[in-house]
Amino acid sequence: MNIKEVIKENATLADNYISKALPAADEDFKIIFDAVRYSAESGGKRIRPMLTLEFCRMCGGADEDALLLATALELIHTYSLIHDDLPCMDNDDLRRGKPTNHKVFGEDVATLAGDALLTYAFELIASSNLSDSVKIKAIKALSYNAGIHGMIGGQVMDMLGEKTPLTPDGLYKMNRLKTGCLIKCACLFGLYAAENTTSVKESLYADAEKYADGIGVSFQITDDILDVCGDEKLLGKPIGSDSENGKTTFTTIHTVDEAREIAKKLTSDAKSAISGYDKSERLIELADFLLSRQS
Amino acid sequence: MNIKEVIKENATLADNYISKALPAADEDFKIIFDAVRYSAESGGKRIRPMLTLEFCRMCGGADEDALLLATALELIHTYSLIHDDLPCMDNDDLRRGKPTNHKVFGEDVATLAGDALLTYAFELIASSNLSDSVKIKAIKALSYNAGIHGMIGGQVMDMLGEKTPLTPDGLYKMNRLKTGCLIKCACLFGLYAAENTTSVKESLYADAEKYADGIGVSFQITDDILDVCGDEKLLGKPIGSDSENGKTTFTTIHTVDEAREIAKKLTSDAKSAISGYDKSERLIELADFLLSRQS
Repeated sequence: MNIKEVIKENATLADNYISKALPAADEDFKIIFDAVRYSAESGGKRIRPMLTLEFCRMCGGADEDALLLATALELIHTYSLIHDDLPCMDNDDLRRGKPTNHKVFGEDVATLAGDALLTYAFELIASSNLSDSVKIKAIKALSYNAGIHGMIGGQVMDMLGEKTPLTPDGLYKMNRLKTGCLIKCACLFGLYAAENTTSVKESLYADAEKYADGIGVSFQITDDILDVCGDEKLLGKPIGSDSENGKTTFTTIHTVDEAREIAKKLTSDAKSAISGYDKSERLIELADFLLSRQS
Repeated sequence: MNIKEVIKENATLADNYISKALPAADEDFKIIFDAVRYSAESGGKRIRPMLTLEFCRMCGGADEDALLLATALELIHTYSLIHDDLPCMDNDDLRRGKPTNHKVFGEDVATLAGDALLTYAFELIASSNLSDSVKIKAIKALSYNAGIHGMIGGQVMDMLGEKTPLTPDGLYKMNRLKTGCLIKCACLFGLYAAENTTSVKESLYADAEKYADGIGVSFQITDDILDVCGDEKLLGKPIGSDSENGKTTFTTIHTVDEAREIAKKLTSDAKSAISGYDKSERLIELADFLLSRQS
């Protein structure tokens, strides 16, 4: 199987698990269950669940445990997109080619659907069959990385950056928080899931974080490059939106060629961090895939 | 000390604990920390923290443990008020006589401040010194009662009720979910906090829930009565807003006298549920206070 096939297979596993894990509807207020399902089931590539799955497999853990934690994290990612799209935030009408949650269900329901997904992520972990220590590690990591010192902080920096341009250091920090934190958490979740049934090499915690940091920033740089010179058809959205919004990106503080070199270097660092471990091939191929992607 | 003094003393304990427990600011995006603190520190009577404290004390537990869980729950209550006040929801400009969060910080920051408080509540519990089993019980109860089958579900029913009047059964259910679930959770949190250092009588779990259910619905009925015939000066807000919004309340499905009788009966049931336990006096006095309150 090549890496694209692996990504697709893992995405299907994640899609199926997520669909089953969503809360059962109460007919007295069904609309919010529909709203939650609408966004949670319109998945994309499911890169974060794949990171959790592959780190767990690398350590000899069980897919079932990885999928539980991956789902919780993906629900957090989903809520953040719903709230991000709201008129008071980015005011987007489309997400992955479909009308955004508030366009279908209204702003009030969309706000509450985001809140519900965020809350349910923690319920899912706390009510699972994972061991107590794994549950607590996971909840600690997820609440921190998705929270005010993590993803939410990054969103605020991004918003502030639209008024006052970010410094180069500020840009790195914003990206580490906004997208990097959840990517790091997804990698750690693979190790925590494995801990539920086996033991994980101590050094891997720090090395998984290094890998996550490399692919996280590289991922964002590639996004920024695609926004300048990507193919609109492949991307499924118009290019040039960042410069229209006057955003500071890796292509405003670097030339495109420089940015490409930095992304390559970060990807190479990410791969080195884990290449010494058995069964790290898929994660290495994934890092290369993310660098070369056209959408 | 009379019950009003006890309420005030407990509120001060909660206020102080909450102020210290809030996340330390990052100067690069200080605005969200200010927004979080603005709402979390503008407290009100802190009835929910008091329930946690007094149930914990009744069982011989430690105030410190009760305050930790009470704070997590109060942050959830706070986030729900911030999101409730947003223009796309109730569109309120004032909360407890102060401008609402989005009026001061903008809708985007207010939305994220709510998200941050919600997320931080779980971080606070997961990172605390409580035992693993108490942490997990607490996170399970909080995520369920604040979630789609609890408080959020109640908010959706409330919204839907503005379009299609609720049935009497629907009204009870909406209130049990919207306000009752967090009140129940606050009472259970007192028992969980006590469990951290001592053992709790098994029967008390069900009896605390009965108490919570009685005072929860009674609390809402009293609110509805005050909205019809309260004193605007004491309430600090205009009366009659429910009927203006065409809302189904306990005073639209009952006469005010009938509603008063139901609230009395529920309060009496609540008191009976716990009167057989040692040191239940304060909780009994609190139930009476909540019934007779003028604001």
